[in-house]
Amino acid sequence: MKINAVYGQSGGPTCVINSTMYGVIKQCLKEEKIDKIYLMHNGIKGLIDNDLKCANEIDEGQLSLLPFTPGSIIGSVRYKLKDFQENEEDYLKILDTLKANNIHIIFYNGGNDSMDTCNKLSIYLKAKNYECKVIGLPKTIDNDLLYTDHTPGYGTACKFIASTIQSFYYDNSIYPSGRAIIVEMMGRDTGWLTASSALASVNGHGPDLIYLPEVPFKKENFLNDVKRIYSQKKRCLIAVSEGIKDENGVLIQDDCEKDVFNHFQLGGVSRILSKWVEDELNISTRAIELSIYQRCFSPVISKVDIDEAIAIGEKAVSYALDGISDVMVSIRRLSTNPYKIDFDIVPLKKVANGIKYVPQEFINLEGNNITSSFIDYCLPLIGGNIVNPTENGLYLYANKKYF
Amino acid sequence: MKINAVYGQSGGPTCVINSTMYGVIKQCLKEEKIDKIYLMHNGIKGLIDNDLKCANEIDEGQLSLLPFTPGSIIGSVRYKLKDFQENEEDYLKILDTLKANNIHIIFYNGGNDSMDTCNKLSIYLKAKNYECKVIGLPKTIDNDLLYTDHTPGYGTACKFIASTIQSFYYDNSIYPSGRAIIVEMMGRDTGWLTASSALASVNGHGPDLIYLPEVPFKKENFLNDVKRIYSQKKRCLIAVSEGIKDENGVLIQDDCEKDVFNHFQLGGVSRILSKWVEDELNISTRAIELSIYQRCFSPVISKVDIDEAIAIGEKAVSYALDGISDVMVSIRRLSTNPYKIDFDIVPLKKVANGIKYVPQEFINLEGNNITSSFIDYCLPLIGGNIVNPTENGLYLYANKKYF
Repeated sequence: MKINAVYGQSGGPTCVINSTMYGVIKQCLKEEKIDKIYLMHNGIKGLIDNDLKCANEIDEGQLSLLPFTPGSIIGSVRYKLKDFQENEEDYLKILDTLKANNIHIIFYNGGNDSMDTCNKLSIYLKAKNYECKVIGLPKTIDNDLLYTDHTPGYGTACKFIASTIQSFYYDNSIYPSGRAIIVEMMGRDTGWLTASSALASVNGHGPDLIYLPEVPFKKENFLNDVKRIYSQKKRCLIAVSEGIKDENGVLIQDDCEKDVFNHFQLGGVSRILSKWVEDELNISTRAIELSIYQRCFSPVISKVDIDEAIAIGEKAVSYALDGISDVMVSIRRLSTNPYKIDFDIVPLKKVANGIKYVPQEFINLEGNNITSSFIDYCLPLIGGNIVNPTENGLYLYANKKYF
Repeated sequence: MKINAVYGQSGGPTCVINSTMYGVIKQCLKEEKIDKIYLMHNGIKGLIDNDLKCANEIDEGQLSLLPFTPGSIIGSVRYKLKDFQENEEDYLKILDTLKANNIHIIFYNGGNDSMDTCNKLSIYLKAKNYECKVIGLPKTIDNDLLYTDHTPGYGTACKFIASTIQSFYYDNSIYPSGRAIIVEMMGRDTGWLTASSALASVNGHGPDLIYLPEVPFKKENFLNDVKRIYSQKKRCLIAVSEGIKDENGVLIQDDCEKDVFNHFQLGGVSRILSKWVEDELNISTRAIELSIYQRCFSPVISKVDIDEAIAIGEKAVSYALDGISDVMVSIRRLSTNPYKIDFDIVPLKKVANGIKYVPQEFINLEGNNITSSFIDYCLPLIGGNIVNPTENGLYLYANKKYF
């Protein structure tokens, strides 16, 4: 007898999470043992509310646009399952949905919180003797998942950030004197995204200074760094993580008490640093937050990232049909030059908690830039070329109403 | 006897100003009558200081990268020539430079201030009986030049803005309830850039609300608009020009006196609007400034824009050799569907002063969106596909040191 499978997306989006969905759907449609592949609307909520879409009905044209489509086309969710011993209500509804739709494989695509959801679900279904394989699929632009060389979504974010830095480098070079441009990347705890700004240095357009949350931030050192660079180059390009902290682990915030006008500033750390540079060094600045661009600007997309995201989806289907469960599919790097990877599995409970920080060997001694080892690690992730489909100059995306 | 020509860039950059330079150089190299084509370093400053680069020596590989290269590769300048009757010093130096290099054609690429520079120069050289053709070449992302259907640089900025809005639309659709995202575009006096956000509506991803400097901004109407849209859609996408003004023509600024905490906000209008929406409607928001992205993010580039920018450069050379002077090359639209243009000339003094505003027929009656006539006008400007050269996933640009 054929079984059905279900796939869901959870947490913040990336540019390639829909690529992984594409991989899952296409592989399920090929498999003899699988009849229907359902999609959860808004992640686990869709499973709780039996709000599913059967992907078998979706036309090929729409499916083929998935790898270029940002966001979570079937809707995402930030919903934490309670322990079932504490409250079984959600779990009972999920079980009803699974039974009602003859679902015996669950694919769940997300970051570490989502792996925790997967793990809880898997434990519950076993306790209830409901035969179901549960496979976690990684995604996050933050690249902070343990036990995988990198995460799908990170490469495209890196490519966008490196392209941004290159463009800003050119923009800041047009006048005899430029500005101190302070570019703020996402990353509350880890500096993976901010570090990727250094890829622009491969073509000589990298930031002069890079500050990550992994290194305690010292205002005095920062101002000295900027002063030195600016006096040499008459311009300065600075990449900074939103989550930089001082030596006491306190987020860098505006010292509004000290302001004689009792002023208060909204906005991120780039604005604060920018104010310091203007006030204390008298250098003209520009603060730019890359904001949600980093996770959704799909016109700049990494082919390697898309290819791997699709392959992870396909691979997950094979693992499930091989009887594997309670794992996340991970990426293992076999070689960097030439770049070569394969896939592996890691128990959900190992991934569910824990954060992968940028390791010491990727950060320079002064703590204000990254090392060439990081470039070696990161550069292959933005490789390859892909031409996004367009019509009348506008990028074409899958339409939410068909999903 | 062969003569030499010189080309310079002035004012803020666009993604295609180097395309126009490419057109000028390639055409000059083809012309029998022209021996050398020089490039001014930092615009008129290069002419004053005899700081020129001979483009004949630059290798083809570097030249071929120009159409993809953002910024002003030969350096720009913001320098206003005095009237020569007032102070002849700069003019005398320029005359020396022209004579020393046998230059009898000047191409100057910029916005209306640059056309004013061209005009002053032309009048002076005539007064001195120095035979020299002076041709202005338009460029500005702002599209606010009179007597041309549009300006080179605008199309690429539009394509970037439309792509951004599409991406943000997808990003803001992932959860059952989204945010009010307020996206701030450049445009102190005119709303051309902000209006282009509406191109995303061709694929159903356009902003719900668009506010231009041409329409007096009323806070109450704005909040009512957002409230209505949000209650219908559970999300709202808003495009706003940095230069919106109230009914008295005063820029929208934070009413910091009214704030009980005496708070003050740095940053643009999107933050102010965002604070209003959060405080008065209790809707979660995100303020995003597109900042310099609009003028330098060349990974998203319009083929039509590049092609026209190059052709304008080529055309300028032909005009000069035909004995035409004291004009700016302009674009004349012959037909919109199919899109067809040719080039024309307009006297420098006509362009030098004056701003082209978004006309009334492009703005809806409520003043909170644009009309389909604007889409008809703007859509062809982002047309065509072009594949930017890359290596290892990084975009390749011309190197400043060769220019």
